[in-house]
Amino acid sequence: MKTYLECIPCFLKQSLEAARMATDDEEVHEKVIKEVMKRLQTISLNHSPPELSREVHEIIRNITGSKDPYKKVKEQSNEMVNNLYPHLKKLVTEAEDPLLMAIKLAIVGNVIDFGTSNRYKIDDMIDTAVKKKFVDDAYPQFKNTLEKAITILYLADNSGEIFFDKLLIEELVKQGKKITYVVKAHPIINDVLKDDAQFAGIDKLATILQGDAGQKRSAPGMVIRYTSKEFQEQLNTSDMVISKGQGNYEALSTINRQIFFLLMVKCPLVARDIGTELAQLVLKVNS
Amino acid sequence: MKTYLECIPCFLKQSLEAARMATDDEEVHEKVIKEVMKRLQTISLNHSPPELSREVHEIIRNITGSKDPYKKVKEQSNEMVNNLYPHLKKLVTEAEDPLLMAIKLAIVGNVIDFGTSNRYKIDDMIDTAVKKKFVDDAYPQFKNTLEKAITILYLADNSGEIFFDKLLIEELVKQGKKITYVVKAHPIINDVLKDDAQFAGIDKLATILQGDAGQKRSAPGMVIRYTSKEFQEQLNTSDMVISKGQGNYEALSTINRQIFFLLMVKCPLVARDIGTELAQLVLKVNS
Repeated sequence: MKTYLECIPCFLKQSLEAARMATDDEEVHEKVIKEVMKRLQTISLNHSPPELSREVHEIIRNITGSKDPYKKVKEQSNEMVNNLYPHLKKLVTEAEDPLLMAIKLAIVGNVIDFGTSNRYKIDDMIDTAVKKKFVDDAYPQFKNTLEKAITILYLADNSGEIFFDKLLIEELVKQGKKITYVVKAHPIINDVLKDDAQFAGIDKLATILQGDAGQKRSAPGMVIRYTSKEFQEQLNTSDMVISKGQGNYEALSTINRQIFFLLMVKCPLVARDIGTELAQLVLKVNS
Repeated sequence: MKTYLECIPCFLKQSLEAARMATDDEEVHEKVIKEVMKRLQTISLNHSPPELSREVHEIIRNITGSKDPYKKVKEQSNEMVNNLYPHLKKLVTEAEDPLLMAIKLAIVGNVIDFGTSNRYKIDDMIDTAVKKKFVDDAYPQFKNTLEKAITILYLADNSGEIFFDKLLIEELVKQGKKITYVVKAHPIINDVLKDDAQFAGIDKLATILQGDAGQKRSAPGMVIRYTSKEFQEQLNTSDMVISKGQGNYEALSTINRQIFFLLMVKCPLVARDIGTELAQLVLKVNS
């Protein structure tokens, strides 16, 4: 997905948010905003939003001197959802279709996102998972592909959300699948790093892969040209690819590879691209 | 009120909106956004938002070549509320306290605003005026001041909204008051110009004054240093001052002059400054 002019105010809003997480110094906040505006003036909008975001957040890190402004927020989300996990697990095991419920919850978990303007309360959202109709036209195809698959490449999105991923990964492992869980190599917004995957115990269920290993900075989505050879190889050879979140959707929606996208729509432009509405839970396949 | 860093994404959102009203050419939209970012990089945030907005919209007019990007929108709002006027008038005449109802409606009319991000549907809002509790602690003081007043300076805000102003002005004229209705000299967002006042027939009830006459461009609020001597004189000598909208509040909330501010709160920073919540109908006096 290309970047739209509407993304610019959004990047600036996010820059201010990140700067405030890193420091209370208002002069630094102002410097961040102004430096990001300077960079956005010269940037090409033909790149996807995660590619621009990658540059924007590097400016923020450089000016604030914080390597990981979202560190505290990430730890808080991990703790919060870790506590919710037994309740979530029960929802899956007691569901009529545990796989479908695990998919639904994995999408609901995508509500935990500090990379977009709109916020949703996770507590309010869990019930929604059970009750709300979601765009699951691709579910039969998901099940079909899954049935034939042995190796699955699973692209992570955010901290906190990782415990929702765990529910789905447990269902997949139960079916004998071999999962590679793709995390980012470097801090970017509240995206999942190796440490988070280990904290959630996903390393005991899946192989953890830093999809953009070798790069000096991460983007909030697996932008192909910034990914490692190993990631690209696995993307080509895995029997099935599951991608979480808007960032990965924005980065990968147009590539020539079947991918199942699980995301909550938090941006009107992504909604338009998918042909759905804001706040919608989406399971979509691109081919 | 000073400008906050949060105003920057908001200015950019508004710039894009204005640029799109002026032209369909996406290259021009991008040029506008980039030029506005360039200007905002060097601007001092110690000025009030209407002062910055004055500069931002000059950039938009210059790049798009449109003297009045909101012209169509203004005409549509005027037409729409003109049609509603008989219904609104009935609400006032049938009210237990017609003055209070006219004030409430004058505030509800402030919902028609293309200068802030949040939009409200006018149809939905009219019922709200009748039912919703509004922050009217200043009403007794308003009535007191009004009782002793002969001359009233009334600062207009937006097109469309002008017909709501008319309801209140008619109540004031009925009580024998002499009103000066302050409009902008030049197009700025959807603010009221002389033509709008004439279209609404306010020229038959009040004296129309271009508060910033002599200036080459208008701000979306009466920023003292950009106003005419005549306006400043009337501001000092009028028995009562009524100010509509956020723009005038942002420009005048800290001056040493009793002003009754009638506005709907459409921005979280204004809400914080007033000590109230978003979407609140406010009648506030600053001394």
